Amino acid sequence: MSERAATPQPPYYAVIFTSQRTEGDNGYGSMAEKMVELAFKQKGFLGVESARDQNLGITVSYWDSLEAIKNWKENAVHKLAQEKGKTEWYKKYSVRISKVEKAYTFEM
Amino acid sequence: MSERAATPQPPYYAVIFTSQRTEGDNGYGSMAEKMVELAFKQKGFLGVESARDQNLGITVSYWDSLEAIKNWKENAVHKLAQEKGKTEWYKKYSVRISKVEKAYTFEM
Repeated sequence: MSERAATPQPPYYAVIFTSQRTEGDNGYGSMAEKMVELAFKQKGFLGVESARDQNLGITVSYWDSLEAIKNWKENAVHKLAQEKGKTEWYKKYSVRISKVEKAYTFEM
Repeated sequence: MSERAATPQPPYYAVIFTSQRTEGDNGYGSMAEKMVELAFKQKGFLGVESARDQNLGITVSYWDSLEAIKNWKENAVHKLAQEKGKTEWYKKYSVRISKVEKAYTFEM
């Protein structure tokens, strides 16, 4: 989860999820791990990258189509997590769905 | 830098920069701050969000056009920072240029 994702050549899709957490864990950590495991089993899932510091969390997940993103959003277990996100875990969040048009990498 | 960016209605562009740092600061912190200040002065810049933990850093900057992104990449001071990034600060990084097609936010 915390390494860079090895995505294919563009085009593909990125869901940029930016969040500010509430205080305390409240079961967030274990649910976040479970969601990553579940995402890896979804059709069209290409990878995920995540970083969090004291101010902000950013998770970017990569998908091969808008349909795959829609299916993930509607996954029943994920829907329960989304509900808990709104009532317990997040003060604020933004979701941005974007189409990756160009990508390059550097390695020392 | 560490708050969520207040971007306009889509479409607009997101540059997703994911990195793994080398050990030590080596002047990175002050240069990173300077780059954010400079980006805010660039034409077409819409905002930036950044999070870093021990494994990964993710910075997403938002722009109104591909031309604005190109101009930023070619900015002379930014180019010096890019060089230092390759020789000193980053073990690995990925840059993904994407077009934001849809966005929504939640606030508790």
